[in-house]
Amino acid sequence: MEKVNIEHKLSAFSDHWHPRIVGELNGQHVKLVKLLGEFVWHKHDEEDEMFYVLKGTLSIEFRGKTVEINENEFLIVPKGIEHRPVAKEEVSIMLVESCTTINTGDNPGSLTKTHLESI
Amino acid sequence: MEKVNIEHKLSAFSDHWHPRIVGELNGQHVKLVKLLGEFVWHKHDEEDEMFYVLKGTLSIEFRGKTVEINENEFLIVPKGIEHRPVAKEEVSIMLVESCTTINTGDNPGSLTKTHLESI
Repeated sequence: MEKVNIEHKLSAFSDHWHPRIVGELNGQHVKLVKLLGEFVWHKHDEEDEMFYVLKGTLSIEFRGKTVEINENEFLIVPKGIEHRPVAKEEVSIMLVESCTTINTGDNPGSLTKTHLESI
Repeated sequence: MEKVNIEHKLSAFSDHWHPRIVGELNGQHVKLVKLLGEFVWHKHDEEDEMFYVLKGTLSIEFRGKTVEINENEFLIVPKGIEHRPVAKEEVSIMLVESCTTINTGDNPGSLTKTHLESI
């Protein structure tokens, strides 16, 4: 039952597309991750996913639509919806999603992270 | 699948201890609420609760301990733990908690809000 300081946690890592777990509640993980460049198209068949932008601007591409999410804005991507995060410049975000969620969803590959550490 | 701007949503209301729903994922609600003064002691027997401070400083009192949560810090209160939020000055926070969570938990009274609106 310790508080979490976002800035402090973000300073603990610098790599991209590698989420760290910073909290857990009701079967959800709270994660921090830094993004740069283009991720892969994917969906999560059973899990909704909340993207909260802490620093920078994140684009989330959908089939036929792109949403730009700025600092202190969030977007919830419903389960089953194909999406692709794109960060033209580095973005730091907080994710809230089910503990079972794998970052690349139904499209595993070199960016897949299956064993996340808590920091 | 629209993004949510925190500042914009916060500007839509000014009363205290009256959470508004701004998102839903995986059986959780994302809520915004403004706090001022002392809440009631309570616990949630089955639900963890995430307090993310957007503006100001929130104290959460526990039996034998108080945690001060500043801007861009969060605390997860596990189910079953008695707590009391206290805001000496106005605080704006984001909550993530199960859709079933009632604000006053096991201690209903004049501050209880059972039917929350989405904004």
